[in-house]
Amino acid sequence: MKETDIAIIGGSAAGLTAAITAKRFYPDKRVLIVRKEEKVLIPCGIPYIYGTVGTTDKNLIPDAVLEKNGIDLLISSISEIDKDGHKILSSDGEVIKYEKLVIATGSEPTVPPIPGSDKKGVYTVKKDEPYLGLLLEEVNKAHDMVIIGGGFIGMEFADECKKNRDINVSVVEMLPHCLMLAFDEEFCIQGEAIIEKNGVNLITNDRVEAIVGDDTANGVSLSSKKTIKADVVLIGIGSRPNTEIAKKAGIELNEKGAIKVNRYMQTSAADIFACGDCCDKRSFFNNKPVNYMLASVATNEARIAGANLYDTNRSNDGVIGTYSTVIGDTAMARTGLSISEACSEGYDFVVGQAEGPNSHPGCMPGASNLKVSLIFEKGTGIIIGGELIGAKSGGELINLISGCIAKKMTANDISTFQMGTHPALTASPISYQISNAAEIAAAKLRA
Amino acid sequence: MKETDIAIIGGSAAGLTAAITAKRFYPDKRVLIVRKEEKVLIPCGIPYIYGTVGTTDKNLIPDAVLEKNGIDLLISSISEIDKDGHKILSSDGEVIKYEKLVIATGSEPTVPPIPGSDKKGVYTVKKDEPYLGLLLEEVNKAHDMVIIGGGFIGMEFADECKKNRDINVSVVEMLPHCLMLAFDEEFCIQGEAIIEKNGVNLITNDRVEAIVGDDTANGVSLSSKKTIKADVVLIGIGSRPNTEIAKKAGIELNEKGAIKVNRYMQTSAADIFACGDCCDKRSFFNNKPVNYMLASVATNEARIAGANLYDTNRSNDGVIGTYSTVIGDTAMARTGLSISEACSEGYDFVVGQAEGPNSHPGCMPGASNLKVSLIFEKGTGIIIGGELIGAKSGGELINLISGCIAKKMTANDISTFQMGTHPALTASPISYQISNAAEIAAAKLRA
Repeated sequence: MKETDIAIIGGSAAGLTAAITAKRFYPDKRVLIVRKEEKVLIPCGIPYIYGTVGTTDKNLIPDAVLEKNGIDLLISSISEIDKDGHKILSSDGEVIKYEKLVIATGSEPTVPPIPGSDKKGVYTVKKDEPYLGLLLEEVNKAHDMVIIGGGFIGMEFADECKKNRDINVSVVEMLPHCLMLAFDEEFCIQGEAIIEKNGVNLITNDRVEAIVGDDTANGVSLSSKKTIKADVVLIGIGSRPNTEIAKKAGIELNEKGAIKVNRYMQTSAADIFACGDCCDKRSFFNNKPVNYMLASVATNEARIAGANLYDTNRSNDGVIGTYSTVIGDTAMARTGLSISEACSEGYDFVVGQAEGPNSHPGCMPGASNLKVSLIFEKGTGIIIGGELIGAKSGGELINLISGCIAKKMTANDISTFQMGTHPALTASPISYQISNAAEIAAAKLRA
Repeated sequence: MKETDIAIIGGSAAGLTAAITAKRFYPDKRVLIVRKEEKVLIPCGIPYIYGTVGTTDKNLIPDAVLEKNGIDLLISSISEIDKDGHKILSSDGEVIKYEKLVIATGSEPTVPPIPGSDKKGVYTVKKDEPYLGLLLEEVNKAHDMVIIGGGFIGMEFADECKKNRDINVSVVEMLPHCLMLAFDEEFCIQGEAIIEKNGVNLITNDRVEAIVGDDTANGVSLSSKKTIKADVVLIGIGSRPNTEIAKKAGIELNEKGAIKVNRYMQTSAADIFACGDCCDKRSFFNNKPVNYMLASVATNEARIAGANLYDTNRSNDGVIGTYSTVIGDTAMARTGLSISEACSEGYDFVVGQAEGPNSHPGCMPGASNLKVSLIFEKGTGIIIGGELIGAKSGGELINLISGCIAKKMTANDISTFQMGTHPALTASPISYQISNAAEIAAAKLRA
């Protein structure tokens, strides 16, 4: 029987970050990651394997980080948690005793009940290196590709698969616009226009009824009765928590099958924590269940779980929901509530929007446009959301907005926020988008 | 006699932003900007005239913004403020009656008492379009240029003047390193290496004793007894507040000649406000006088002044001191206190540093390295400063750190801050620089 102080099941973003954090807080404890994968993919990098990066090999989290942080590794598949015995059991019979356990088993792609999903040539976004390598081979020889789901994963895949390839790429989305669960309509339309200009075929307000072909897929048929040719079909409609072993161990799950955790990331079982895609998440705004399967959220939870293993150090205030994507050369990002979410959650709010180049003067080489939209609650004037589209520096700017949300800043606070500006790096201080969007909202709040 | 509700003396970053803010808060009031310049330069863009941008023309704040915001403009030089009569007088005899006045007269370059500073070929960084146009002509035909002062303005000028020109550019700095008032030594050394690689000659620990030549400068002689050839000499050692008319009007100045203001940006005179380089500034950290002549600080103060003209809406918490520069293709930025400032202010502190690519995987095209250093006060764990060098997205990232300082976030808060990440836009969520630097500092704080 092996023995460790802290065992972590799962070695991706959540598991690895929990391990690093545990070592930082409890340097004298032995930390063991048990994972089933030989190699661990950078999860958010997966779409980029198919274009910009070019191989699965270059999209790996290097194991050197384990050694550097003094973390032990066992590559093995855990089949059982003996929560009373403080032991985990691998499918090849190994038994590991632990003091504290972190479950970071992640998620599996959802496969919708579409007839034909089991045909050859149909793929999901599995975090599995050999599998994604096969998909790459298929994409490389395909003439026609259909992506089911126009969320940001679907859009990133479409954009990347189209790059430098003579291939028809179509995205089928059942909502009126792609990216609609992430962005408000105006931003979705801009994103759609960019990817369409890059040659991707978007089919919205439609639904795949079946994947057709014999053994191998050769097309999809849609609710609209159209059929589209496809040598390869990628299903990218979301993921579900991977919690079989937790369930088997009698650890409480929520109604969606995610592991229930409290604000310290503790599960219902003594000395067992969970973080990442496998555990349930609550909204920062109203504590309602939310569904954010993002590596950034996973690492955030892992930093809380890892810190709390032997002592309560951190608590989880709920998910703000900050993320970014790139369509063509344009960054899109959001944080907090979108306008449509603010509406459906019953908020009374105002929106301030500002747009301009991310340099000053605007003629600086490499300057891009950047549009920022901020949402503030009426009455309190507190920021509850933000969206942006344009310059790639938006990937960091959205994090500033996320910080403003975390600290419950008001429109007035943000207007007079002390930003630094530079001709080559940002908008001018007179028209800095965040300040101006907040000023415009502040004027509406006073009206 | 002209009449307005709100008169603003000065039409650069501070004056213009105060005008826009005043219109947003008091839309029914008439706002008049009185400025002496035909055309207004983008102040931070001035060094870029000499390389990247190429002409003074392309570095102007367009007057269209005045019309768009319903702001009146008078181009005239104000020679007197009659504070009891609520009137300002122009040098050509015009009298303008106001209800509220904002003084935003900016600053003038400091000319050190160096023999020969009055020779032809010697320039300062005057915010004057025709003058800077002359300097451009001189630089274009010069073989040897000497810049006195290795602060960030001097370094930006050196970098730009060297671009695409067959010219020897030397920077003379009296401190041991260039950029030393802005950055800690380790960052200064990195910045110096980049600009030296670009062919700029840096002379540190030395001082210009005299500018030599007959009528026209042909060199500078140094304390070290060396002489350097120079067809053109640029003095970039700082600025002093432009406050002659305020002084003449009996408005209180501080010991450095800046207009005294309270936290609402009110001067000692009824109904007269001031903002920008002409008014005195206090530190966010300890309320001591500080000397930040930055357009970003000026606009921040202008947003406070403009909002408070008829009613107290905003107050000034003091200058955090956030700014960024670019040397070669590398961004450098800082906010709050540097390590050396924290030392001299008597802080007991720890530093956390994290470095890595601003993409994940690091092989993404266009990826740059980004190093972030964060300083936290011992005991409270509150962040008091940050510095970074590397990727250009650092220009926005420094603003996130500035926000953390403004909201007095602790190392623990920042480690678990909810950032969004994306392969092409940021570091990975596992190694996001801000989170990791804060984690490293948090571990030191616990030790």
